[in-house]
Amino acid sequence: MTAPLLDGLRVVEVSAFVAAPIGGMTLAQLGADVIRIDPIGGNIDYRRWPLAPGGRSLYWTGLNKHKRSVALDLRSDAGRDIARALITAPGEGGGILLTNLPASGWMGHEELARDREDLISLRLTGNYDGTPAVDYTVNCASGFPAATGFGGPPVNHVLPAWDVAAGLYLSVGLLAADRARRRTGTGREIALSLSDVMLATVANLGYVADVQVNGAVRQPAGNEVYGAFGRDFETSDGRRVMVVAISNRQWHALLRATALTETFEAAGRALGLDLDSEGGRYRARDMIAALLKPWFAGRSLADVGDALSREGVIWGPFQDFGQLVREDPRCSPRNPLFSLVEQPDVGQILMPGSPLRPPPAEALPPKPAPRLGEDTEAVLSEMLGLSSAEIARLRAQGVVAGEPAAEQQEQGRNSEGTAVPAPGASVAGAP
Amino acid sequence: MTAPLLDGLRVVEVSAFVAAPIGGMTLAQLGADVIRIDPIGGNIDYRRWPLAPGGRSLYWTGLNKHKRSVALDLRSDAGRDIARALITAPGEGGGILLTNLPASGWMGHEELARDREDLISLRLTGNYDGTPAVDYTVNCASGFPAATGFGGPPVNHVLPAWDVAAGLYLSVGLLAADRARRRTGTGREIALSLSDVMLATVANLGYVADVQVNGAVRQPAGNEVYGAFGRDFETSDGRRVMVVAISNRQWHALLRATALTETFEAAGRALGLDLDSEGGRYRARDMIAALLKPWFAGRSLADVGDALSREGVIWGPFQDFGQLVREDPRCSPRNPLFSLVEQPDVGQILMPGSPLRPPPAEALPPKPAPRLGEDTEAVLSEMLGLSSAEIARLRAQGVVAGEPAAEQQEQGRNSEGTAVPAPGASVAGAP
Repeated sequence: MTAPLLDGLRVVEVSAFVAAPIGGMTLAQLGADVIRIDPIGGNIDYRRWPLAPGGRSLYWTGLNKHKRSVALDLRSDAGRDIARALITAPGEGGGILLTNLPASGWMGHEELARDREDLISLRLTGNYDGTPAVDYTVNCASGFPAATGFGGPPVNHVLPAWDVAAGLYLSVGLLAADRARRRTGTGREIALSLSDVMLATVANLGYVADVQVNGAVRQPAGNEVYGAFGRDFETSDGRRVMVVAISNRQWHALLRATALTETFEAAGRALGLDLDSEGGRYRARDMIAALLKPWFAGRSLADVGDALSREGVIWGPFQDFGQLVREDPRCSPRNPLFSLVEQPDVGQILMPGSPLRPPPAEALPPKPAPRLGEDTEAVLSEMLGLSSAEIARLRAQGVVAGEPAAEQQEQGRNSEGTAVPAPGASVAGAP
Repeated sequence: MTAPLLDGLRVVEVSAFVAAPIGGMTLAQLGADVIRIDPIGGNIDYRRWPLAPGGRSLYWTGLNKHKRSVALDLRSDAGRDIARALITAPGEGGGILLTNLPASGWMGHEELARDREDLISLRLTGNYDGTPAVDYTVNCASGFPAATGFGGPPVNHVLPAWDVAAGLYLSVGLLAADRARRRTGTGREIALSLSDVMLATVANLGYVADVQVNGAVRQPAGNEVYGAFGRDFETSDGRRVMVVAISNRQWHALLRATALTETFEAAGRALGLDLDSEGGRYRARDMIAALLKPWFAGRSLADVGDALSREGVIWGPFQDFGQLVREDPRCSPRNPLFSLVEQPDVGQILMPGSPLRPPPAEALPPKPAPRLGEDTEAVLSEMLGLSSAEIARLRAQGVVAGEPAAEQQEQGRNSEGTAVPAPGASVAGAP
């Protein structure tokens, strides 16, 4: 095995919830040493649902794989001094802070840069002016819920898409700042806000300009694809598929698969519609759907899939999360993305590595999330040179914690029980 | 102005649609020189809806800002030789290909690496085995549409969330590979598939483990937040807001804003529910919503917003795209993300830069998308040292094209018209 892509990069993450943890995990999965610092007992996200039967959060473990965990009393000066020393510790690839907590006071960039001039810090806020926002309250304002569904009330997405995108932007910003520092020796603070990620994306996709230059406001259209042919169909066994024909090649593949080439030629001629253009198919979408529907309704999902795949039609089955896990071969160890890995306190689960796949010799197998504070001793010894005796003293003073004691592990409840708020939760800022 | 973050990085993008173009644009907005190569007349995405009144695609211009455009006849050996020379041109930050087209034949990594051993290539496919897929056909299989909405048929997202995430992963992978090459001198090919982005994300968020260890399959729950209190409310003026209380601090802010602290204390006691825990609030969500509803129904959006913001409640208005553009101050030049910029053939529009905000001296103002082939001459002269006479000869032979001729600009139609398939469309692989 050669060195992983991000060998030598060291990031200290002080975070909670989805976006910032995804930012750190994305880099850790490519080989960066990502040290997540939490308050003793865990941050506000540590017991977030869903939970494993033993009380461990599947949410937290999913978003913090491949990291090391250090637990500190961040309300005490002693705990903050240790956090500060870890963030600003020397080393070419270190001196990098990634956070979504209020980066003021001891966590402020200027303040930390007093200890390491070339510090890089990445700071995520809700809005660009520092006011708080979360995925749900950004999404509602994006315009997408109003354009989703079948025309009733607005429909929120369930995927926290803005959090996911923001986490990935944080990874991009961090690597860009690291690149600049390698070339010039200069560190810097980079700010990102969740609502700016939303706004930039809405504009990048043309929706803002469509309002500005056309006065057009996209309306909900169910599961239809805008500007081309694409929609869902029901199969004879009560399943549903999504079928898309954007290019002419894809369109003709669909006609071959359904043996409807001549039917559509005749229908296009009769109605004077050009079915050999994206726009023409979009305008004819109701007619196209009506002619295709019986073909799908007369076949099982398996038969539909065989016929479509044989001709290279772009299609996919609708699946719930259970069907995805139980039926989709891509969601199994057959896909090199996944391995069966023992996640402590959870069990053996299907764990993804990075979807970015370098040559096999450089790819890192998935590594479970740490237990809270699991790496405290190792990190303090390795990075700050503290002795076992010093660490034991800090632990006795309640400044640092190692792995949580057994009874703390049992505080959690399963999905039917009550999630206990973490004692350190007040340290965390807005999610 | 200091040098931008990605000064000196040069990427050749051979792409279409959303994901790969976002990957390139994200880097361009941070200062990389991103050269998009298209077939003469444009790739399959060049006229994708929505269109400006003059026929220019708002989709294409939105996703290709800040790049340079080179148009080549990629069906001819001469055109491919030029593309190959651009991809493998010498230069420390160059030798990087980003593509979502089939990376075989002349575009294969091994083949190109014959001309530049330290080549980096980033290749996006539909599925990990190379079979095609698009956002819609990946999303339907993710489990999210089945968990979205109010319990009817599955509901697709309208935001192409997997494309956006895949684009950002491509940026991450490219910067990670560039970092590794700077340290070791070695290039490499990195593969990413759209469905792996989906699968990794579903698993990262805990949904796969929830099926595996709890047998739980998340069901649609309208606009409610899972595992905490959060949902939408209607206001007296027919608008709608999203309100979220995840932490205790946020919950008590909501109670103060609505003057319902004592009411909820009494209700919690009466029903024996612990409203001071996330899980307790989740279980009591229907009762909480019923008690809050009249407060919202009795106030206008403006009054609701004032009262909630004053107490620091996490909330947001539902807006359609029109309301976002016309009413939200974050979607205006008041937000440093945006500037009013003239996009050729479109007009003056609100254009975002990168949501990643380095110190002001390093931030790049937004730059419009190029006209197709606009930079062909400049790039061929600068990177390959071709003379004007040589370029004129190539142009006469139809191997390269500069800016499209006037009649070609007029081929497009407005939103009411027919999108003309690009002559070079057959060169493009699966979207």
